[in-house]
Amino acid sequence: MCTLSEERCEACQTGAPKVSDQEMAILVRSVPEWNFETRDNILQLERSYSFPNFVDALTFTRKIGELAEQEGHHPAILTEWGKSTVTWWSHKIGGLHRNDFIMAAKTDQIFNQ
Amino acid sequence: MCTLSEERCEACQTGAPKVSDQEMAILVRSVPEWNFETRDNILQLERSYSFPNFVDALTFTRKIGELAEQEGHHPAILTEWGKSTVTWWSHKIGGLHRNDFIMAAKTDQIFNQ
Repeated sequence: MCTLSEERCEACQTGAPKVSDQEMAILVRSVPEWNFETRDNILQLERSYSFPNFVDALTFTRKIGELAEQEGHHPAILTEWGKSTVTWWSHKIGGLHRNDFIMAAKTDQIFNQ
Repeated sequence: MCTLSEERCEACQTGAPKVSDQEMAILVRSVPEWNFETRDNILQLERSYSFPNFVDALTFTRKIGELAEQEGHHPAILTEWGKSTVTWWSHKIGGLHRNDFIMAAKTDQIFNQ
């Protein structure tokens, strides 16, 4: 059985099911440092990462952008001095899909490398 | 007389004066597409730029990051699919300094190149 960070995003079409509360309770164990945020009634996964300067934060942002392109699933990334905040959600379904938890796990993996 | 985008940021120390309303009325003419936003009681300059995809938005974010490093003055940049939103303010004075208008003008210049 592969870990969440090793999974690939599946195609997510409009009308695909959001993760159920039960699935979510299991998935969050793999990404314990991520927070749930609700914006415009859309549930999102969010985590801020700290860095010693602006350049390192921007380098991390770039790496997550490359990951997003590879997987065809794109986050919002706020880059500031010493901080990069990554937010994942599935635009097409207006909420959280299993893909978002996969991407959160991959984001952690890149940070921890 | 050089245009605002050709000016360099001056060292901004804690206690340096914020731009006056009178100065601001003149400076905004050079950056007419920027909006004023107030967050945590701090006045900020903000503009969103549109792009045809995520990669182009991220490339713009990187360029603004390089500009920030050159000038030693750093914004917050929110990168999303097709959009990069840049926010300038002076952390040390908790508001807007002439530097922020210079950086806004330089940001526009990079977008227009």
